[in-house]
This record gives sequence, C-alpha cells and structure tokens, in this order.
Amino acid sequence: MAILAGDALLAEAFRTMSRGALDYGIDLEVTTDIILEISQTAGFSGLVGGQVVDIESEGQDVDLPTVEYIHTHKTGALILGSLRAGAKLGGSSGDELEAITRYGGRIGLAFQVVDDILDIVGESSKLGKDVGSDEARNKATYPGVVGIEESKRLAENLVDEAVSHLTVLRNRAEPLEEIGRYLIRRTS
Amino acid sequence: MAILAGDALLAEAFRTMSRGALDYGIDLEVTTDIILEISQTAGFSGLVGGQVVDIESEGQDVDLPTVEYIHTHKTGALILGSLRAGAKLGGSSGDELEAITRYGGRIGLAFQVVDDILDIVGESSKLGKDVGSDEARNKATYPGVVGIEESKRLAENLVDEAVSHLTVLRNRAEPLEEIGRYLIRRTS
Repeated sequence: MAILAGDALLAEAFRTMSRGALDYGIDLEVTTDIILEISQTAGFSGLVGGQVVDIESEGQDVDLPTVEYIHTHKTGALILGSLRAGAKLGGSSGDELEAITRYGGRIGLAFQVVDDILDIVGESSKLGKDVGSDEARNKATYPGVVGIEESKRLAENLVDEAVSHLTVLRNRAEPLEEIGRYLIRRTS
Repeated sequence: MAILAGDALLAEAFRTMSRGALDYGIDLEVTTDIILEISQTAGFSGLVGGQVVDIESEGQDVDLPTVEYIHTHKTGALILGSLRAGAKLGGSSGDELEAITRYGGRIGLAFQVVDDILDIVGESSKLGKDVGSDEARNKATYPGVVGIEESKRLAENLVDEAVSHLTVLRNRAEPLEEIGRYLIRRTS
C-alpha cells in the first residue's frame, strides 16, 4: 500500500500540473517545459538516481564526491526543480533563471548538509523523527566524511554562495535569502 | 531497488511525453491533455486504484462488480489510456474518439478476463509465467466468480461488442479489430 501511495502521488503531481495549466490558461510551452523538468527531477537522473546511490553506499566507505552526488540528486534536485518551475511560471529566463538555478543548487545541498548535522546533534522531539538513524544505518553523510564542525562551515559557505547569486534579482529575492539564512538556524 | 525502478519508469513516461512533444512539434494543447489523461490512467483513479482494490480483495468473497472494478482500472485503464492517447495524437475527436473509447473499455476488460482464464488453463512455458497463481493467492477473478465457461463467453461477447463500436472508423480500424480477435485466441 505504501508503494502504491508513492506511485499514486507521483502520477498526481503530473495530473496537478497538466490539469492546472489547462484550467488556469498557463502558457503550454512553459507547462510542457516544466513537466519535462519535474519528470527529470523525480526520475533516474534526479531523485531516484540519488536514492539508488544512497542505498548502494550504505555500509560502504564513501568519498566526498559520492556524498555530494547523493545529496544534490536526492534532496537537492527536488528543491532546485521546484525553484526553477516557479521561476519559469513567473516568466524568468536568461540571467534571472540562471541566478535561481545557482541559488537552488547550493541551497539544496546546504539543506541536506544541515539535515545530516541535525541527525547527530538535533532533538528528536523538535525534528519529529528519530536522530542517530544515519549512523545506525552507516549512511553516507557529510559529518561522517568531513566531521561535524567542517560540515557546519560548509553549510554556511553554501548558503553564502547561494545568496550571492541572487543579486541580479535585487529586493525581489529577499524571501529566498531569508529561507537560506533560516536553513542554517533551523532546529526542526 | 524494484520500487525505485518503478518510480523512475513512471517519471520517465512523463519525460518521454513532454520531451517528445517539444522535439517533434506536437500541438501542446493535445500534449497537455494526453499527459493529464495518462496521469489519471496511472494514478489513484486508474491503475493504482484497481491495484489497491485487488490487494484488499485477496482472500475475500468478492462479487462481480468488484472484479469488474479491479479489471477495468488495473489493466483496462492502461489499454484505454494508450488507445485514447494515440487517437488524440492522430487528431481524433467527437464520434471517432468516442468509438475508440468504447472499444478500449471493452477490449481492456476482455484482455483481463482472458488473462484470468489463461492463469487456469494456460501453459506456463507459453505464458512465460507460472499458472495457478491467482487461485493460490485467492485473487478476485472472473473464472473464480462466474466459472470458466461463462468467462469464455463473456470475453467473446466483450470483443464482439468492442469491435461493433469501430464501424464509424471503417477500414482504418481493421488493425484494432484484428487485435480484438487475437485476444480471444491468444495462448501466451
């Protein structure tokens, strides 16, 4: 039933996009482009690809590029895909879309690095899930590879870099900057 | 890994449709409509919905409407959705699309009735899968509810009815009629 729920939700995402585009008169070239992007985000070149490497890496000695591959594909791709879909719907292209893309790539990775850190130092009551599960399952994580202090520095650098890409969007990008800063502070 | 393969293939279907439409200059209103239809075909109102009822019916006493629900949604929806997608890409609408839809609904159900029959009387070497698995798992099937002879008559009637809907398409529908007739004869 859990497998079927996942399948149904995946199909529902594409139903929502196509139904919404037809109902609200969204430009269908933009719509088709977004459906293409989200399908790649979810499939073997995105989320599924990251998850496959994640599973195969359990219990293995992994290097930093492997951890980065897992994180950029598994969680990062979904965050990046969502950002780019929103940007395209808002009519962004060229420099603006490029800025959102660079921001999204860094922020997606930062999110997952912080997630790895919280799995070690976080409180399960705030997170709403057990902590320590990564280590117990011998998962490939940033703290596992470079240590917790270096991971914190890395997350901060990623957010700084992400935010630096937003200058072209000026004050319209303030909410995105705030989201980036929040990522570092979050405890849940 | 099997779950992930399924997820990736589901996403890949939508990638193929959107990528193909953009590459080959397919009308994007037709494309979006087809993506919507296939998402409904695959999701909780189609394939997933039928599979859920199928699983919940295992080991239960089921009536004919339940078996029909399972079959029209699980296999039938995919056959119907594929037919309608092809018809729409070919520019069908109105009477023609209606004819294909009625044909597809009956043919999809006929396919599954024959599949149930072959699971009892078929040869596993020809089918490429074990026979008797429905009965072993106490699955909801047509032969299980109405018996094998009545199921054969039903399959033939369904194909006759399916083919009768094709008259509006005249000789262009000959391949569809042949597929219908083949369904009854098939042993693999």
